[in-house]
Amino acid sequence: MAKINENFLKLQAGYLFPEIGRRVRAFKGKNPDAKIISMGIGDVTQPLAPAVIEAMHKAVDEMGRKETFHGYDDGGVGYEFLRKAIIENDFKSRGVEIGLDEVFVSDGAKCDTANMQEIFGLDNVVAVADPVYPVYIDTNVMAGRTGDANKTGQYDKIVYMPCTAENNFVPELPKESVDIIYLCFPNNPTGAVAGKEILGRWIEYAQKNRAVIFFDAAYEAFITDPEIPHSIYEIDGAKDVAIEFRSFSKTAGFTGVRCAFTIVPRQVNAYAGNGRAVEVNPLWKRRHCTKSNGVSYVTQVGAAAIYSSQGKKQIRRVIELYMANAALIRESLTKLGYSVYGGSNAPYIWLKTPQGLNSWDFFDQLLQKAHVVSTPGVGFGPSGEGYLRLTAFGTLESVKEALERIARI
Amino acid sequence: MAKINENFLKLQAGYLFPEIGRRVRAFKGKNPDAKIISMGIGDVTQPLAPAVIEAMHKAVDEMGRKETFHGYDDGGVGYEFLRKAIIENDFKSRGVEIGLDEVFVSDGAKCDTANMQEIFGLDNVVAVADPVYPVYIDTNVMAGRTGDANKTGQYDKIVYMPCTAENNFVPELPKESVDIIYLCFPNNPTGAVAGKEILGRWIEYAQKNRAVIFFDAAYEAFITDPEIPHSIYEIDGAKDVAIEFRSFSKTAGFTGVRCAFTIVPRQVNAYAGNGRAVEVNPLWKRRHCTKSNGVSYVTQVGAAAIYSSQGKKQIRRVIELYMANAALIRESLTKLGYSVYGGSNAPYIWLKTPQGLNSWDFFDQLLQKAHVVSTPGVGFGPSGEGYLRLTAFGTLESVKEALERIARI
Repeated sequence: MAKINENFLKLQAGYLFPEIGRRVRAFKGKNPDAKIISMGIGDVTQPLAPAVIEAMHKAVDEMGRKETFHGYDDGGVGYEFLRKAIIENDFKSRGVEIGLDEVFVSDGAKCDTANMQEIFGLDNVVAVADPVYPVYIDTNVMAGRTGDANKTGQYDKIVYMPCTAENNFVPELPKESVDIIYLCFPNNPTGAVAGKEILGRWIEYAQKNRAVIFFDAAYEAFITDPEIPHSIYEIDGAKDVAIEFRSFSKTAGFTGVRCAFTIVPRQVNAYAGNGRAVEVNPLWKRRHCTKSNGVSYVTQVGAAAIYSSQGKKQIRRVIELYMANAALIRESLTKLGYSVYGGSNAPYIWLKTPQGLNSWDFFDQLLQKAHVVSTPGVGFGPSGEGYLRLTAFGTLESVKEALERIARI
Repeated sequence: MAKINENFLKLQAGYLFPEIGRRVRAFKGKNPDAKIISMGIGDVTQPLAPAVIEAMHKAVDEMGRKETFHGYDDGGVGYEFLRKAIIENDFKSRGVEIGLDEVFVSDGAKCDTANMQEIFGLDNVVAVADPVYPVYIDTNVMAGRTGDANKTGQYDKIVYMPCTAENNFVPELPKESVDIIYLCFPNNPTGAVAGKEILGRWIEYAQKNRAVIFFDAAYEAFITDPEIPHSIYEIDGAKDVAIEFRSFSKTAGFTGVRCAFTIVPRQVNAYAGNGRAVEVNPLWKRRHCTKSNGVSYVTQVGAAAIYSSQGKKQIRRVIELYMANAALIRESLTKLGYSVYGGSNAPYIWLKTPQGLNSWDFFDQLLQKAHVVSTPGVGFGPSGEGYLRLTAFGTLESVKEALERIARI
C-alpha cells in the first residue's frame, strides 16, 4: 500500500498566493468591471532589457542550426560563460573571490532555497525570521523537520525570530543553539536591510555554533545605500558558514524566463553523526545533477547578456523605475498618515494597517474599496499580523492610480 | 551544529555520466587528436524544428514588449495553451481523457521522476527494474528510503526486478508486496517495450496491492509498432494507479530547452497512517508550486509549437532520422555477430558484450580502439553487467563512422 508523506498534511491551508488569488477571483466575479491594480505578488511588469532580447534571439537561432545547437548543459551546473560573468560582476567587483565550482546556476531562487535543506539532516533545528518568505518553512515541513502547526500557524520545532518595528525588522540572535538559519536581506516581505555589523554577528554566531546560514540575496540589486553589503561574502568569515542565493527574477525581470544561481563555498561544512566534517559543496552538486538537467541554453545566454555594458545600463534603468515607484508609495502613504517601512533598498513596502485592523481585513478593504491587491502581512507569519506588503513592481501610472484610490478610502 | 543528510553518504561513487566523462577526459588528455564519437549519454544532435524556432522568436519578442511581457506562469503548473495542446494531441487522440488539472508542466522529466517520491512516505517499499535509470534509485537513497549499498551497488530495502534477455527485459511481477513501482517503456537503457497485456498485469498488481506506478514514458515518440501503447492510460484502470512522466527532450530535441510534463490523475490515491485515502494530485500540486515557479514562457511557447501541423511533421522527420540510425546500428552489429536488443521502438540499443567481457572493460575497449563513447550496462545495475548501451542520437555520418571503427576492432 502506497503511503503518503504525512508531513504534507501538516501544511496550513493554501500557500499564501493561491489564497490571495482565490479572493481576487471571487471579487472579480462579483465586480467584473472593476479595474484591479496588483501590488500583491512580487511579479515584474517591465519587459526584458533589449540586450537580453537580442542575446536570446541569437541563442534561439543557434538552437535552430546543427552546427551551433546546444543539448544538455554539460554537468548541469550552468555554462561557464555565465558562471564567469557572475563571478566577475557580482563578486570580484565587490572584492569577493568565488570559484567556478562554487556557482550553481538554476531555474529559480525559489527552487534553490526550497531544495537546499535536502542535503541536511532531519535533526537540524531551523531558525527563520517571522515574518518570512513561506517557502523556507513549507519545505522544512514537507521534509519532516517540524511538528504540527499551532493556532497562529507556527510549527513546532522551528525557531521563529520575530521581526518588528522595535528591532527594525532585523532578528535578534537566537538564545538557543540553532543549526540552519535562513536570512533574507534586503528582506522579503519587510524591505529591511542588514549592514556589515549585523551580518558579522550572524557569521560569528554560525561559527560558534557550527551552524549554516542560508542567505537569500534575491533583492540585492535594489540596494541604494552604499554602506549595505550586496553579498554576505563581503563580510569576513562568511565563506566558512554561508550559502548565498541570487536570482535574475527581480534584478532583470526574469520571473517568466527562469534563471538564478546559488553560491556554495568549498569551505562550508556540515557534520556527520560521528562528528566528521563533510563539505556541503559536493553534496549540493550531487543533488543538483541528480535531480535536474540544468537551465535552458537560451535563458542562460539571456542571463549572461545582463552583464554586458549595455545590459547593465538597461537593467539599472528598470530598477530605478521600480525604486521610484517605491519612493512614491512610501512618501504618499506616509503623508496619508500610515506607518511605512522598507522601500528604500528593496522593492517592498511594509505597511502598518490603520486602526488596528488585522492584515486580512485591511487586505479585503484595499481590494473592495480601492481595487488594489496587496499581500497580508500575517501570510508571512504571526509577527506580520497588522502589516501589509505592497510591491513596487507596477507601472508608474498604476502606482499613482492605486495611491489616489487608497487616499480616497 | 548543522548535520548533513547522511543518506547522501550511502550514494555510490559518482553518478554514471560524470564517471564516463572522467574516463573520456582522461583518454582525450592522452590522445588529443582522437576524433571521439559519442554514443553514450542520450543527448540529441539535430537542431530544433523550424516551427519551434519561429515560435520561440515570437515569444522572445513578446518578452521584449511591455504589452505582451510574461512574468510568473500563474500557478506554476504550465500555461493553459500548452496543457490543452498536450491533452488534445498526446491523449485525446489516443482515446484517453485527461483533465487540465491533471497536467503539470515542468523543466524536465528527470526533475519530475526525481521529485515525485517526495510526496510519498519514507516507509514505502520501492521496486525498480534492474538495469534502471539511476535517478529513480539515487533519489530514493537521498530521501532515506534505502539502506546501504552492497558490493554490486544495490541498496538494501529496494526491490530490484531483473531484466535480462530471458524475460525480454520486461520485469516479472514482484512476489513480495511493493508500494511504489518505477516502470519505463520504451525502456532506458534496454530499449524494451511493453504491450497492453504486460501493462495490464502491472495495473492489476497495483490495484490489488494499492501500489502506485511511476510510469516513465519519455521515449514514447520512438514507438513504431502500432500495437504498443504510448501512454499507460490506454489501458483500463491505469488512471487509478499510475502517474505518467513525459518529456520534450527526446521527442523534440529539447535537452537544452528544458520542458516536460507529468500526468497525475485525480483518482490516484495513497494512504495516510490511519488508512485514509489521500488524493495524490493536490499534494503534487502543492509541492510543485511551493518548490518551483514553473517553466520559461519562451520554452513553453516553443513546446506548444511541436503540436502545430508543421511542428508535428518536422519533429517526426527528426525521430525517423534517429530511428534510421538505430536500425543501422542494430543491423550492422548483428551482422558483426553481436547480440543486439532494443532499437526498434526506442533510440537505445542494448548490446551484449563479446567474449564475456564486463561492461566497463568493453566500454574501455570501444573508447581506446574505436574512440567511441558508450554507456556501460553495469552502470544501470548489476543485471546490466555484460551489456552496453548505445544511443542512436548521433548524425548518420558519425554513426556510420562509429560502426566502421567497431567493425575493425
